[in-house]
Amino acid sequence: MTRVTCCQLAPQIADLEANRALALGAIRGAVAAGAEIVVLPELTTSGYCFDSREEAASVAVTPAHPLFGEWAAAAGDAVIAGGFCELGDDGLLYNSAALVDRDGEPGDSAPPAVETAFGSVGILICYDLEFPELTRSLALRGADLIVVPTNWPLVPRPSGEHPPEVIAAMAAARANHVFIACCDRAGEERGTAWTAGTVLVDEYGWVVAEADGDGVATADFDLSRARDKEIGPRNDVLADRRPELYVSLTDREDARV
Amino acid sequence: MTRVTCCQLAPQIADLEANRALALGAIRGAVAAGAEIVVLPELTTSGYCFDSREEAASVAVTPAHPLFGEWAAAAGDAVIAGGFCELGDDGLLYNSAALVDRDGEPGDSAPPAVETAFGSVGILICYDLEFPELTRSLALRGADLIVVPTNWPLVPRPSGEHPPEVIAAMAAARANHVFIACCDRAGEERGTAWTAGTVLVDEYGWVVAEADGDGVATADFDLSRARDKEIGPRNDVLADRRPELYVSLTDREDARV
Repeated sequence: MTRVTCCQLAPQIADLEANRALALGAIRGAVAAGAEIVVLPELTTSGYCFDSREEAASVAVTPAHPLFGEWAAAAGDAVIAGGFCELGDDGLLYNSAALVDRDGEPGDSAPPAVETAFGSVGILICYDLEFPELTRSLALRGADLIVVPTNWPLVPRPSGEHPPEVIAAMAAARANHVFIACCDRAGEERGTAWTAGTVLVDEYGWVVAEADGDGVATADFDLSRARDKEIGPRNDVLADRRPELYVSLTDREDARV
Repeated sequence: MTRVTCCQLAPQIADLEANRALALGAIRGAVAAGAEIVVLPELTTSGYCFDSREEAASVAVTPAHPLFGEWAAAAGDAVIAGGFCELGDDGLLYNSAALVDRDGEPGDSAPPAVETAFGSVGILICYDLEFPELTRSLALRGADLIVVPTNWPLVPRPSGEHPPEVIAAMAAARANHVFIACCDRAGEERGTAWTAGTVLVDEYGWVVAEADGDGVATADFDLSRARDKEIGPRNDVLADRRPELYVSLTDREDARV
């Protein structure tokens, strides 16, 4: 079993040092409680609702920034995934995610599934989750667990329903027989209320944990179960695909017929 | 607005004449109540839990069977979609779906979106819905409404949750900004209990109607809203796709990297 913990933090807008301490404390707390994979929100280091490009640039970091070394040191044998505002080599700013393990090497390209000590982990950031092609691609690439650092702005929903993004996660987990851990953020920022919809979803698509009063959500997953795609004696969620029937989803041309 | 009605029937196993009358009565009732698109369950004409190939063959029909002409006559200006056990030209049996309009011409190829008087309608049968590539393909082909004749065997689910197939429909509707009408069946057949999970889902992914005591579920949809894929000033559920990032979902090769 692998213990996966989401830390639903409330970063401070444009305050790198405050957010650095916030994330580090959360990682330490989760690891002390046995977490082996820790997921932090989107843009954990920076906040989200920037007033200007300049404000975002003031808290943008490269993957070489020492804060990732701090994450790695705090992680011990655990793996940490979290979002950050990245200053790219090209001078542009990116909404990125890092996956940090004891080797302290972050990566910020989302689609690949990364082999870790606990299984293959894919990362999607927020809106990425809305694209079934991306969750499917990660499953086809062997991801056992998809982690989703996210900031979901609160939207209206019918009484008794999960947030719509959670429904997308549930459907994707079931369609691909993978585990999904979405770490949302808490609090309010410059008038934007967040959903605080952190969930851990099992490979059948059911929500097995949500954030507690401290914003922590934890589940123990047997990630190896994601490698068996059979869902009965005659069905397999990947082998039963019929690619010849699909519009060429990797082409850009208009498929309307 | 287009009135879409699902008739959650309980067909009798291997009794073509009984099911023919059942479907015809349901179509007439729905049309009398103003339905413009009527959706019937999977294998409406035949039942589902066959004991043998021979039993299925005894109730298999071709698209030329007069029952479809009856559907068309009862439909008037409406469009009828429903599942049937098909005897193919190749002598094989198929789990098919027909889309019948006043011209009385059924089609049984699922993936295309068919232009009707009310908009473009795509058909998926049951397990098809579990493949995000198919719902996406139909949206890319211009479907405004996806109808799903289905027989969902009842499976356990956590208290308060929708059936898992409904969650798949909700996620697909939202991901593609299309309307979805799933017509499940009722009753029990040879020990198989059915979910009776008929739902009409709007283009935001919310369930707006479920079957009433008579098994009828109806919603009035402005299907033209499915043609606008914008979900805010900067986002569009189809235009925001990033095909260059996806595993080639239309290839069969192993995409594991």
